[in-house]
Amino acid sequence: MTAPGRFISLEGGEGTGKSTQARAVGQALESRGLTVHLTREPGGTPGAETIRELLLTGHDEKWNMRTEALLFAAARAEHCDSLIRPALEKGEWVISDRFLDSSRAYQSVSGELTDADILAIHDVGSRGLLPDRTFVLDIPEEVASRRAHARDRGESDRIGGRDSGYHRQVMEKFRQYAADEPGRVRLIEASGLPEDVTASILEDLSDLLG
Amino acid sequence: MTAPGRFISLEGGEGTGKSTQARAVGQALESRGLTVHLTREPGGTPGAETIRELLLTGHDEKWNMRTEALLFAAARAEHCDSLIRPALEKGEWVISDRFLDSSRAYQSVSGELTDADILAIHDVGSRGLLPDRTFVLDIPEEVASRRAHARDRGESDRIGGRDSGYHRQVMEKFRQYAADEPGRVRLIEASGLPEDVTASILEDLSDLLG
Repeated sequence: MTAPGRFISLEGGEGTGKSTQARAVGQALESRGLTVHLTREPGGTPGAETIRELLLTGHDEKWNMRTEALLFAAARAEHCDSLIRPALEKGEWVISDRFLDSSRAYQSVSGELTDADILAIHDVGSRGLLPDRTFVLDIPEEVASRRAHARDRGESDRIGGRDSGYHRQVMEKFRQYAADEPGRVRLIEASGLPEDVTASILEDLSDLLG
Repeated sequence: MTAPGRFISLEGGEGTGKSTQARAVGQALESRGLTVHLTREPGGTPGAETIRELLLTGHDEKWNMRTEALLFAAARAEHCDSLIRPALEKGEWVISDRFLDSSRAYQSVSGELTDADILAIHDVGSRGLLPDRTFVLDIPEEVASRRAHARDRGESDRIGGRDSGYHRQVMEKFRQYAADEPGRVRLIEASGLPEDVTASILEDLSDLLG
């Protein structure tokens, strides 16, 4: 009998090290003989990447918050159907740089949409698929902002370019999910050395690694 | 005090004369001094037309039914927010070639999504906006198929190209909506002369014209 596939998501603001940790954790899991898919949202499949392009380019007023939430949900439905579920069914691992909790946090901050709205469209689009474990990478705001700025050289995308008050509220939402769903969502202190952060994540995964 | 704006949708399969009737009814309303916006779905605004492009081009398997439904809902959210609601608030009329009932019919036929699913994402995306009156143009299947084929010269889009069994079931759904919601949805026998069909629609609108 094949071991079950596992689905891990990494969440947090810009500059918290999600992509770096996704790669490092993926390599560590592969070195244990697991098949690992590294992916990201919005996007992750050719179809979903075309929706990503619509979402992240252009000026901030390009889409109202409701349209934005539905486009994220559409990209996610494609991602779940074409990549995540098939991999899990084969007993493989999937590590996604962002998933549903980013939609919950980023699209509900404005107050235009509720958390229940985001979950309702996720139920229809992706039949409510949740990660087995979600890591929220938490670092002090000024460190994240400096890192994101150094990386993007001031050229952030449509959503990354929103103001610091917005990003602070997003981070508060992520912390709240960790408090509300401690079984799935784990807050990881991520301002130290990248290898120490990877070690914390792998230690936390030990129950899923069997 | 300004008279309230009114929102009319035209529904039915390919080749039933929706665009022709939208133009003719629009002209008749304008000749009464009303301001009329002729629009269509998916699309109707620059942003929504970019989503239309994603939806209608490519092969039929490009999107699974859940992604397709969310993309339609995203385009509709943009259409309602940028064009339909602002026009209605100014007391103007909007005639849309297709609206929500097309999503209900086309995306629920496969059985993958329920009518409740489609309505749930419409509630989130477009705050449940419904037309004041919806006309389902009903003509015998062979006439519609001949007309659509003559117009498209065999080159139909991603959804129009689905088989005749699919389109027959879609038409049955439209008839069911007229039976279920007789106040809003009216079935119009549309195989006669275009000017007679326009006259039937205008007669039916007399209560909204005040």
